[in-house]
Amino acid sequence: MAKYYRSEEKHLIAVDCVIFGYDILDKNLKLLLIKRKFDPLKGGWSLPGGFVNHEESVTEAACRVLKQLTGLDQVYMEQSYAWGEPQRDVGGRVITISYFALIKIQDIDPIMQEASSAHWRYITRLPDLVLDHSNLVGRALKELKERIKVKPVGFELLPEKFTLVQLQDLYEAIYMKTVDKRNFRKKMLSMNLLEKLDEKEKNTSKKGAYYYKFMPPRYEDFKRQGFYFNLDVN
Amino acid sequence: MAKYYRSEEKHLIAVDCVIFGYDILDKNLKLLLIKRKFDPLKGGWSLPGGFVNHEESVTEAACRVLKQLTGLDQVYMEQSYAWGEPQRDVGGRVITISYFALIKIQDIDPIMQEASSAHWRYITRLPDLVLDHSNLVGRALKELKERIKVKPVGFELLPEKFTLVQLQDLYEAIYMKTVDKRNFRKKMLSMNLLEKLDEKEKNTSKKGAYYYKFMPPRYEDFKRQGFYFNLDVN
Repeated sequence: MAKYYRSEEKHLIAVDCVIFGYDILDKNLKLLLIKRKFDPLKGGWSLPGGFVNHEESVTEAACRVLKQLTGLDQVYMEQSYAWGEPQRDVGGRVITISYFALIKIQDIDPIMQEASSAHWRYITRLPDLVLDHSNLVGRALKELKERIKVKPVGFELLPEKFTLVQLQDLYEAIYMKTVDKRNFRKKMLSMNLLEKLDEKEKNTSKKGAYYYKFMPPRYEDFKRQGFYFNLDVN
Repeated sequence: MAKYYRSEEKHLIAVDCVIFGYDILDKNLKLLLIKRKFDPLKGGWSLPGGFVNHEESVTEAACRVLKQLTGLDQVYMEQSYAWGEPQRDVGGRVITISYFALIKIQDIDPIMQEASSAHWRYITRLPDLVLDHSNLVGRALKELKERIKVKPVGFELLPEKFTLVQLQDLYEAIYMKTVDKRNFRKKMLSMNLLEKLDEKEKNTSKKGAYYYKFMPPRYEDFKRQGFYFNLDVN
């Protein structure tokens, strides 16, 4: 393996994870942050990250970071961007590749989260982040906003059953603005991707609201038939 | 700068450029390829690429590769994906970051292209490519297909003035299927982003067809007003 490219310069490669969670009770999009454990900038608020090891792929490194922090390994994760400015890290040249992940907050192992001193922070009230991490968050958030329009990934942030109000709340939390209720329901239901359950959520109103469930197999079927998810409610 | 992270492993980082061009005469999307100049796999068909140097950003490295090959530096370029499988390069571990670029074929400096032995190949009839380069092309092509739906980047591949038939030909070459003419024109013109010129293209029909021009400043204005480019003609 090491026969070629010997004279070329090598670089440190890291991954950083923009981990989104959604709190269905207070209707807020949140971000999982840690306090940086090493110098420089030790103690500063940071995205969870780590260096890429020799034997692992970049994506495996991102999965490792996520798993160590949350105990989760079956989560929606997408590569976001490679950040390669020579001066981006005050500790030395590090090229970092950011990923964003969507997780159900309630699935996280609380003991692990405690041990790793990870904290959920409101996306609308983030503390100052180390290095260029606020850029990484900004880009991932922009991608998330685009993604939930054209892919049914919003469901990754919700419990298995949810009401239409809760689903709309999620979209509004991500878009950071209100969306038209009638239009939203019409578009969502017309795609025929939700199953209406025989059960009502009764905490928020006396009458109650029916629970729905997203049906991934049906979505896969529809995709094969050339159907495009489209929930453009802007 | 070199005080921290001393014990961490370093890696070779490369960039690879997926350079799309469009031939308005034969209505084909093309890709700029080179014959690999070094071992391993010397002589194989390859995307143009190179290692990232210490003092340049990753994007600067991609621009350098593009400029060396084509003489161009004001082109549309977008980062596509970081490819980080440990075994992807038989010559050693190299993490590569792919970019795709859209250029007007006629703008390329022919002398430079000759000297660099770069060749335009039809996207539908590519030769076998070295390493995982066909994956890099596949992903960039998928992204291009999505991009021309929601951003006016298709114009980057066309001369400044073009007929509506030529514009539709471009979309069909990228989608690799026919699109409905009436629907295409209706959607394109309703966005009000094209200026109709007082001049006709007369080579392809006796009656001739009016030339149009894309108006970037108007697009920027519209964007500020919350307008979204949308040309979903699938």
